[in-house]
Amino acid sequence: MSVLREIKQSAEEEVQRHLDIIRRQILKGVTRPYNEVIDLSSGDNHAAGIKPITFVRQVLAGCLYPDVLLGDTLPVDAQLRVKRLLEQCAGGSVGSYTDSSGMAHVQRNVANFISRRDGGLPADPNHVFIASGSQRAIMAILKLLPQGEGTSQTGIMVPTPCPHTLPHLLKAAGLVTVPYQLTEEMDWKVDLLQLHKVIQASRGHCSPRALFISNPGNPTGHIQSRRSIEQIICFAAEHKLLLLVDEKYQESVFGEGSEFVSYKKVLAEIGPPYSLTVELASFHSLSNGIMGECGLRAGYVELVNFDHTVLPFVETLLCRDISTPVLGQIALDIMVGPPLPGDPSYNLYTQEVESRRATLECNMDKAVDCLNTLPGFRCHPVKAGLFIYPHLTLPNAVLTQAQHLGVEAGLLYCGSLLEEEGLCVGVCECVCESSRQGSCWHIRMCVLMPSDVLEDVLCRLRSFHIRFLRGY
Amino acid sequence: MSVLREIKQSAEEEVQRHLDIIRRQILKGVTRPYNEVIDLSSGDNHAAGIKPITFVRQVLAGCLYPDVLLGDTLPVDAQLRVKRLLEQCAGGSVGSYTDSSGMAHVQRNVANFISRRDGGLPADPNHVFIASGSQRAIMAILKLLPQGEGTSQTGIMVPTPCPHTLPHLLKAAGLVTVPYQLTEEMDWKVDLLQLHKVIQASRGHCSPRALFISNPGNPTGHIQSRRSIEQIICFAAEHKLLLLVDEKYQESVFGEGSEFVSYKKVLAEIGPPYSLTVELASFHSLSNGIMGECGLRAGYVELVNFDHTVLPFVETLLCRDISTPVLGQIALDIMVGPPLPGDPSYNLYTQEVESRRATLECNMDKAVDCLNTLPGFRCHPVKAGLFIYPHLTLPNAVLTQAQHLGVEAGLLYCGSLLEEEGLCVGVCECVCESSRQGSCWHIRMCVLMPSDVLEDVLCRLRSFHIRFLRGY
Repeated sequence: MSVLREIKQSAEEEVQRHLDIIRRQILKGVTRPYNEVIDLSSGDNHAAGIKPITFVRQVLAGCLYPDVLLGDTLPVDAQLRVKRLLEQCAGGSVGSYTDSSGMAHVQRNVANFISRRDGGLPADPNHVFIASGSQRAIMAILKLLPQGEGTSQTGIMVPTPCPHTLPHLLKAAGLVTVPYQLTEEMDWKVDLLQLHKVIQASRGHCSPRALFISNPGNPTGHIQSRRSIEQIICFAAEHKLLLLVDEKYQESVFGEGSEFVSYKKVLAEIGPPYSLTVELASFHSLSNGIMGECGLRAGYVELVNFDHTVLPFVETLLCRDISTPVLGQIALDIMVGPPLPGDPSYNLYTQEVESRRATLECNMDKAVDCLNTLPGFRCHPVKAGLFIYPHLTLPNAVLTQAQHLGVEAGLLYCGSLLEEEGLCVGVCECVCESSRQGSCWHIRMCVLMPSDVLEDVLCRLRSFHIRFLRGY
Repeated sequence: MSVLREIKQSAEEEVQRHLDIIRRQILKGVTRPYNEVIDLSSGDNHAAGIKPITFVRQVLAGCLYPDVLLGDTLPVDAQLRVKRLLEQCAGGSVGSYTDSSGMAHVQRNVANFISRRDGGLPADPNHVFIASGSQRAIMAILKLLPQGEGTSQTGIMVPTPCPHTLPHLLKAAGLVTVPYQLTEEMDWKVDLLQLHKVIQASRGHCSPRALFISNPGNPTGHIQSRRSIEQIICFAAEHKLLLLVDEKYQESVFGEGSEFVSYKKVLAEIGPPYSLTVELASFHSLSNGIMGECGLRAGYVELVNFDHTVLPFVETLLCRDISTPVLGQIALDIMVGPPLPGDPSYNLYTQEVESRRATLECNMDKAVDCLNTLPGFRCHPVKAGLFIYPHLTLPNAVLTQAQHLGVEAGLLYCGSLLEEEGLCVGVCECVCESSRQGSCWHIRMCVLMPSDVLEDVLCRLRSFHIRFLRGY
């Protein structure tokens, strides 16, 4: 194929591709020791058996087929919501395009949600942009940065570890990654001294213009202290960095004393001049929100302190994506504006959401406890998000065998786990100082699933792990 | 905003932005001479009042809320379709991610559809990739082309006129556009001699590796002859060009003797060596198909003669988009596999589809006739697609006024039409030889809407046009 170029796949992508192949084989009737593979590498909770929230599905179905469903089939508040949303769709149909930055109605409701979340701090709907998932929103904002050339090429400071989907976005946007290390031993804390060193060192080969961070930590599941957020903001101000904050797990915080505080709120509390100058983009999504509707594809970004002359360009960049799926936007509307006390659907909605939270928290504890009993695994308690992110040390014999096969040791482990037990996990090499190259890894594993499914997953993982180690 | 760069907006994007502003003003209660703006620049037929196809909405609603809807609410074939589709969703929920290349089940059905369309010619589901609209599919394929540098930078031959969404995709992919002109006077024919000249001339500044073409013409609405398709294929073979064929309007062909023939079919009929070597990517979408579900976002590409080692990279590139909205994929499944004779929903489905086609054809005739009565407009009969694409010559006084205001004459016309009558049309400068720079334009106008809406649109356009010209 002479005209086409080769594209190198990352370790993550290799595992995903393997997963696709196995799934298709199973559909074709190829026999495996398991009936289906479970993809724990992404937060695909419906796939793992978590049930959708009834009110969301009622409203979506009603919007699609209002003629019939606006009879007695749906509760009154779902019917009202359908009517209100369809009034906002051109031609009264969810089959129409929306404005490139999203439905104005949904933007307004997102702004209200943000304002309530931040204790009444104002949020401007015109600074909220809806996209087909937070990834697309991140991409649009990255595209606003100039690329530059040579030593003035734009650099972006990125934590290690970072969301597994981020590196390819940065590459596609043509930006230079300037990695800074989170300290696992100190609950994934940002080391401010290191940050200063890293940005200094980067100036030789690029021009750093932005800093990315996850709050709460993704995939680490840690919660940044308010003091740490303040430090990052001051650092960004000092170096004139745009702050890109992944706040996707803001609704998934648990454990006693744990609380989500947004960067925007801390920024406002610091006061001028920071609160008026530091540019901030905060991302959230439907897939990672409490309803976990990954298949619908929607997310948003709120921009703070962006020059008003820049905003139309955000719209233009999102417009190039045509428009966000309308049903995703509608689900987002419910995520930011659930039924209120007294509404007919309030009790069921609240009960379903609380049950999900309880399952998630209970599963976290179980999974952390289980992994800590397995030789080679070390797993910190997790306070937010959907993932556990244990540290895995593999014996030298595994390293030798992997080199022999021409693959990385972490891939050998995860590939075998997928092949033998039908469990797909994320994998990332650890760069901790104490480890020899290639023997330390982190495993990323979503635990939002029904309790019995998690029991099964842990059982398969335990049995595989012991068998795998025994082989070396 | 020091860290961000300026992005120039195209004339099209300027008009779209103006449209967004006016729409938001109307929502806020600002009074205008009209209650709502009609966007004729895109094929957003639901927005213009075309009703959705009942079976599509029944199945989608059923997939979202199966517990209740799989009672008596839906016809039996819709219920069966829901069950079959949910079996293909991980965890039985449309809230799950799908494989990056789409649901295997939908890929299979698309392949069957293509095979039926092409008279039994085989189509391989593994060569069909589902994306969030044909635009995203085009982008993924463009990304397969190497960018190159200097004179070896990859060039792509692109017709003038081309789909209005294409130029920004090419730009984002970092490719050099090598334009070739379609001959309006000869029913938008491709001039083969010109094609040879253009590619020759391009070799000085880029390396042409692909040729884009719309079949049927987009936005021109013409049908290429089989002979012309053969010539293009031979030209591509001679110059080792990848053929990118937009076949979005394959289902919207009308008028006596008009017939859609796919590039793939003609390629197969030419026989070896061409049929075994010429690389071809054919695109289709839900938005432009007969059901016009723009808001759901789905499309596909079929790849022919691509090396099997390249296919995984297509998957990787699409994977970077995460996954196509599941409800869009489901609607695509219905588009390629509608109810069959004897199914309970067959009659209604067929009747709804036929009624849309009849409306479209009738509107085309009406619109062409109307515009041809207006001074300055010249409109060829249209045989396919959703748009008319008349030629508009503006008087010199308009040109002078536009220069005075620092805008283009075509924009002055379309901006005033939008402002005064609430009609948004697409606009493109014409490069016909006989025209003086800036006085000749093409207007792009979708006519798929209820007949009475079209009457109103034509009335507003006529009245505006006469008033506008009178001002000069």
